[in-house]
Amino acid sequence: MSEEIQPQAPVATIGGIAAYDGQEVTIRGWLYNLRESGKLLFPIFRDGTGLIQGVMFKKAVPPEMFEALKNLQLESSVLVRGKVRADQRAPGGFELDITNLQVVQAVSQDDPFPITLKEHGVDFLMEHRHLWLRTPRQNAILRVRHEVIRAVRDYLDDHGFVLVDTPIFTPAACEGTTTLFETQYFDQKAYLTQSGQLYNEATCAALGKTYCFGPTFRDEKSKTRRHLTEFWMVEPEMAYAHMDDVMDLSEQFISYIVQRVLERRPAELKTIERNTAPLERVRPPFPRISYDEAVEILKRKGSEIQWGGDFGNADETLLGEEFDRPVMVHHYPAAIKAFYMQPDPQRPDLALGVDVIAPEGYGEVIGGGERMSDYNLLLQRIREQNLPPQAFAWYLDLRKYGSVPHAGFGMGIERVVAWVCGLEHVRETIAFPRMLYRLYP
Amino acid sequence: MSEEIQPQAPVATIGGIAAYDGQEVTIRGWLYNLRESGKLLFPIFRDGTGLIQGVMFKKAVPPEMFEALKNLQLESSVLVRGKVRADQRAPGGFELDITNLQVVQAVSQDDPFPITLKEHGVDFLMEHRHLWLRTPRQNAILRVRHEVIRAVRDYLDDHGFVLVDTPIFTPAACEGTTTLFETQYFDQKAYLTQSGQLYNEATCAALGKTYCFGPTFRDEKSKTRRHLTEFWMVEPEMAYAHMDDVMDLSEQFISYIVQRVLERRPAELKTIERNTAPLERVRPPFPRISYDEAVEILKRKGSEIQWGGDFGNADETLLGEEFDRPVMVHHYPAAIKAFYMQPDPQRPDLALGVDVIAPEGYGEVIGGGERMSDYNLLLQRIREQNLPPQAFAWYLDLRKYGSVPHAGFGMGIERVVAWVCGLEHVRETIAFPRMLYRLYP
Repeated sequence: MSEEIQPQAPVATIGGIAAYDGQEVTIRGWLYNLRESGKLLFPIFRDGTGLIQGVMFKKAVPPEMFEALKNLQLESSVLVRGKVRADQRAPGGFELDITNLQVVQAVSQDDPFPITLKEHGVDFLMEHRHLWLRTPRQNAILRVRHEVIRAVRDYLDDHGFVLVDTPIFTPAACEGTTTLFETQYFDQKAYLTQSGQLYNEATCAALGKTYCFGPTFRDEKSKTRRHLTEFWMVEPEMAYAHMDDVMDLSEQFISYIVQRVLERRPAELKTIERNTAPLERVRPPFPRISYDEAVEILKRKGSEIQWGGDFGNADETLLGEEFDRPVMVHHYPAAIKAFYMQPDPQRPDLALGVDVIAPEGYGEVIGGGERMSDYNLLLQRIREQNLPPQAFAWYLDLRKYGSVPHAGFGMGIERVVAWVCGLEHVRETIAFPRMLYRLYP
Repeated sequence: MSEEIQPQAPVATIGGIAAYDGQEVTIRGWLYNLRESGKLLFPIFRDGTGLIQGVMFKKAVPPEMFEALKNLQLESSVLVRGKVRADQRAPGGFELDITNLQVVQAVSQDDPFPITLKEHGVDFLMEHRHLWLRTPRQNAILRVRHEVIRAVRDYLDDHGFVLVDTPIFTPAACEGTTTLFETQYFDQKAYLTQSGQLYNEATCAALGKTYCFGPTFRDEKSKTRRHLTEFWMVEPEMAYAHMDDVMDLSEQFISYIVQRVLERRPAELKTIERNTAPLERVRPPFPRISYDEAVEILKRKGSEIQWGGDFGNADETLLGEEFDRPVMVHHYPAAIKAFYMQPDPQRPDLALGVDVIAPEGYGEVIGGGERMSDYNLLLQRIREQNLPPQAFAWYLDLRKYGSVPHAGFGMGIERVVAWVCGLEHVRETIAFPRMLYRLYP
């Protein structure tokens, strides 16, 4: 493979081509598409930053160069020299008048690029995920994901939260042990984290406001469009904070993320064909309703739910439809929430927990609330749950040495990306999704 | 627990106290220290954003409030109202004239905060890591770590790299199987990733320049000051790039990170008592020497190394001492590098790999190079290594469908933080380090 085109022209990216209007540049990329029209070839090139159409006149280049392009398989890697020309009809606003083309590696005609414009089954695409990522739609989703993650971090960093990475290997379960992946850790067992929250409670007492952001794991034999076995979660936690603070932060946080994607990734959203009107409406304040009210709404809409039950996917969809922006449901029955939730002082059968349910049927994207701050009550709950108090000794310590009211939440990145992109299934929100029966590539 | 102080004053953080000079504020925090001098109490408070000394005059508050503070155990949580007064002698530049103090939760006199100013053994501190994090030095290290991570992301985001999270669960080993943590993944075995690099090679062909940044795992029964079983690694990868591009990026990247910490975290570096003079010198260009030259230097300095051998920790320290900034060592013997390294066309026994070795004895912080782009050669190497070609079918695909020269590296965050902070051991660079025999808290 050689990468020299003589005479050299400055290397440009397709995404940054506007800076080179009227100049000759070198593009380093891949052949994305090719159309022939007599003495003209219209290749489209991609380089990861965008697509650009080139024009090759038969007379403008040596005959063997014209033939080489004419017979070139898609996704072959190429160095292209050409003059950038503004053209309003072109998708990116520019075309390239090709003066030189050099093939870096030609894809074999006997073994062409497996992903074509025709419809492929999901299993086929997932099996070829490493190549599927090259297509414009998948490419755009990954860029939106990146923007979501940048927005998450920028918002928290700019609001005084300190990132504290919490461990992946944990000695004990945060929310039950049945869905934990286990590994041999030298002479003991370790479990892969499902949440950094317990650790966040320690770090917020040290640093005031903290967050963790990393992969979490769930060993669940379920095949739904909202679940992966490996998914990324951001979890902010605040000392001296209550359930209302969680709702205030949630609505600001989600709105910031959605508006920022709208502002910075319009081209990607267009590629994905996302109707952005529902996203434009995602601004504070979000409606806040109690669990009691949510159950009434669901019954009215025909759900079979009874007070005390947890919402299923269908219930979340029904609830989400009722509002034009995310809805925050608070004061859940304590029995269906985690053991560490602070009870409502007025109605101790309720927990000061809140879930945020996205509109358009995307379900829960945030779960959080106020944590228990009383030592004795927490110890009692740990015993009731048959959790080993010894494993939670450090967690109980936080209630002995300067306990404070504290609160926080977890937000699943893949669900947010699925919602913002308008995807049917979370499997497209991450480069290499891990699901039941899907561990390759 | 109540959090109301009447009459209320605006809540301020200690880190942002300068905005309230001359005003009355409420601080929500913990009692960090307490000194008594007759009719005066000098408590120091912390709230995660900083420390501030308060002054309580016996006559200025009700007698029971004075007594309450006088007898208060360290790390009790408190709400403090007081007037902010600039004082150049004070560590943070301000003091607080206390007008009201309310104890949120009093630490028991029978069970005081376990970490005191006296020396504690490392095992004791590690067992109480959840509380140790509250001390100023550990607090400062975590803030430097956060700044390092922000710098990493900002640099890459601002230079056209797309973040693509690579999977933690992998079906096959990247660099041998002996140091892999294993888990049952439904009906098959999965391994915890040691590097996202192979996946980065797929994503950079889709997006041009990418990076992954997440936890990686090494099941190694070693107890050195440079190793954790769970550590965070950032790995950029570039299509159409060579070993020289790795060196160019490495020196810019590391310099940016170090200079940014110096610029934004001077107070934290002072708390850690880091001599910043050696860090000031970390600017491009970094010296670039070949492995051959490195071996000559080491022999001259008394190392037992022979050509062909890998550098040990002691060798890395010796090499690092030779230069006043990080040194980049390139062209290693192919035999001691990973199977996917591109061989030097002139000397195929050498690999186009490069390691960056930090000064001051901190050893290797970056390892990378150019990857193999030829299908047949890669297949041959996979067979030579007795790796299962089927598991690498997708990886081989990258050489069939538009192969391009590509290169990248991995940088371990904990080693960089240890170096920047001047720490003896990486265990202090992460909130909850995971080591041999250390899985708690």
